[in-house]
Amino acid sequence: MRVFIAGIDGYLGWSLAQYLAIRGHDVGGVDGYQRREWVAEMGGQSATPILGMQDRQQAYEDLFDTQLWFREGDLTDWRFVSEVITEFKPDAIVHLGECPSAPYSMIDLNHTVLVQQNNIVGTLNILHAMRDITPDAHLVKLGTMGEYGTPNVDIPEGFFEIEYNGRTDLMPFPRQAGSWYHWSKVHDSNNVMFACNMWGLRSTDIMQGVVFGTRFDDVEDDRMITRVDFDQAFGTIINRFCCQAIINHPLTTYGHGGQKRSFIPLKDSMQCMTLVIENPPDKAEYRVFNQFQGVFTVGELAEKVRSVASNIGIDANIVNLENPRIESEDHYYNPAHQALFDLGYEPTEDIDSEIKIMLQDLLKYSDRIESKKDVLIPDVRWNGSRQKAQRIASA
Amino acid sequence: MRVFIAGIDGYLGWSLAQYLAIRGHDVGGVDGYQRREWVAEMGGQSATPILGMQDRQQAYEDLFDTQLWFREGDLTDWRFVSEVITEFKPDAIVHLGECPSAPYSMIDLNHTVLVQQNNIVGTLNILHAMRDITPDAHLVKLGTMGEYGTPNVDIPEGFFEIEYNGRTDLMPFPRQAGSWYHWSKVHDSNNVMFACNMWGLRSTDIMQGVVFGTRFDDVEDDRMITRVDFDQAFGTIINRFCCQAIINHPLTTYGHGGQKRSFIPLKDSMQCMTLVIENPPDKAEYRVFNQFQGVFTVGELAEKVRSVASNIGIDANIVNLENPRIESEDHYYNPAHQALFDLGYEPTEDIDSEIKIMLQDLLKYSDRIESKKDVLIPDVRWNGSRQKAQRIASA
Repeated sequence: MRVFIAGIDGYLGWSLAQYLAIRGHDVGGVDGYQRREWVAEMGGQSATPILGMQDRQQAYEDLFDTQLWFREGDLTDWRFVSEVITEFKPDAIVHLGECPSAPYSMIDLNHTVLVQQNNIVGTLNILHAMRDITPDAHLVKLGTMGEYGTPNVDIPEGFFEIEYNGRTDLMPFPRQAGSWYHWSKVHDSNNVMFACNMWGLRSTDIMQGVVFGTRFDDVEDDRMITRVDFDQAFGTIINRFCCQAIINHPLTTYGHGGQKRSFIPLKDSMQCMTLVIENPPDKAEYRVFNQFQGVFTVGELAEKVRSVASNIGIDANIVNLENPRIESEDHYYNPAHQALFDLGYEPTEDIDSEIKIMLQDLLKYSDRIESKKDVLIPDVRWNGSRQKAQRIASA
Repeated sequence: MRVFIAGIDGYLGWSLAQYLAIRGHDVGGVDGYQRREWVAEMGGQSATPILGMQDRQQAYEDLFDTQLWFREGDLTDWRFVSEVITEFKPDAIVHLGECPSAPYSMIDLNHTVLVQQNNIVGTLNILHAMRDITPDAHLVKLGTMGEYGTPNVDIPEGFFEIEYNGRTDLMPFPRQAGSWYHWSKVHDSNNVMFACNMWGLRSTDIMQGVVFGTRFDDVEDDRMITRVDFDQAFGTIINRFCCQAIINHPLTTYGHGGQKRSFIPLKDSMQCMTLVIENPPDKAEYRVFNQFQGVFTVGELAEKVRSVASNIGIDANIVNLENPRIESEDHYYNPAHQALFDLGYEPTEDIDSEIKIMLQDLLKYSDRIESKKDVLIPDVRWNGSRQKAQRIASA
């Protein structure tokens, strides 16, 4: 299949390009390198030393014996989007080209507007390009499990049958996101659902858990390594814990770490997205998949990283910080995730081994983490202020 | 109270300014005159000959013996929004300053992006201004009953208690809007709810039915008349029927007119918004009111206008057009609207008399309608094409 990846230079995008190439798909993609700029703006850098796109294309060609189609540009620019879709003619469009950070969206008004506008307009451009140029293509849209929030009932996959005042209907499950970023994804989900209904487009909206890991198994060439961020805004939680452990920094939880979230190893994310791409929905179908391996509390994950690190000779302690976010730390959380199993998803059972691989990968780059370690402690607060989170007593 | 009206030059905004002045409130407002431009872009004009804002201010001063505070500017401009909120220091901010047209948002990508961006960014600016400048102010946000769509169950006021898999929770009622414009209002509702939760702001999100009418009872000065649009994009349905009747044009329904919608006379809208303003929610409360007088099918309304017109000597027939929208014409519809009754809303019982007043008002302006009658027949289609709707056989 011809698979177009929006955001191909990113953490997931660059991994997926390789994962799909290995499986024989024709991959193309675009990126505007905004992620590199945003991470630099936060004072961070990728823990892994990543190449520029030209060198990445060369390495890709060396390894997979095929060229990687790439164009640099901005998804909020309609002319660019329409030109690349016209030229590449994808069977599937994987939309990973959004600003993916809750803290970044909470910094101030400018960042709130940037994130919502960037994400909404990019998606609107892609939907219109599909309608006008490739109406049979499959949009694989990256959403987030964070769209649902933490309701006091089970979380279905996008839709649920409700009974209300004696009548029943199949309806979208109500979203209750926890940041301007997460809401931008909800706005996107609503826009994508509408476009499928109106224009007969097909889409899979992936509500993905928090991804962690440095690699999927297949590629050993260092030039192919994907970015791994550890700053407060673009570093995902397990990745941050691992980077902290590497430089003997305490593993810092927000509050006492009772928040339950869904998680997925990077290689499982690649497996799932590939299953989604290879099993497209029907024309005019909008389907929602919850994509994660398991549910853990933040405290459990900190303990996992501490324990695995200890087994390979790295001592790490766990420290509770003031929670800069406004979120419940003690709540019900029971999301469904059957659809991907039905397509054949085989989850990684041994999370500890994944964490061990990540720690071993990161050991080489401890200097890169050490040199930017200031970004490990959050200061973007949900009330609009900006102040480093202080240590609090453990529970 | 000091009431700030965003969009004070518009159909509702200009009416509300007067309604509140009569009741002793200090009114101020802003407008960028976009509505005037958008209507002109659609080839239309207000059926009523409205004054420019300077003349409106003078008339307001003559009539109410007080100045109308006004600044011209764009709500998507943060500097402007922060300056006017700082200067006016409102107790209530009534946000009517959005692009309110489904067809306009469906014209093409540029219009889709304009409507979603304009509405979302304007609201984000107001929310941030409230957080930083007037955290105790009450945001009265104009949403629309169209946010709900037409689900097969009763529609509550914003929230409902659900039972799912044996557990219960109070959740936002799922929205299923029918145009990019209506979705922009859903995105707004979500953003406003989030800001109230995060920052302790207070807001009433009004899901308003389709408004109709030329006036509320109190003001007879012609200089104070509000705009009444009749083009496909900015003319609301009963207003369009009345304008059609005035020039002996057939009353045109989209499809066979089985669509059920909620409606409210202009004077009831003013009464309700004033009740909302005078009864603010608690700090950190986000409440949703469904604001309408009654539910009718489009066909019933056409028949009402035909019948009232006939009683005052105007012959009008009803013609069914191809439906340019993608929407159900035969569906369940049962929205609640108790909250405003609890605050004392006394609905206009006699809709026919309201229609008669409107027809009589519009008779003076038949030339203005006649000269732009081309805009009465829709051509913006939900599938992305643009083609005048043709007559179809009646049901």
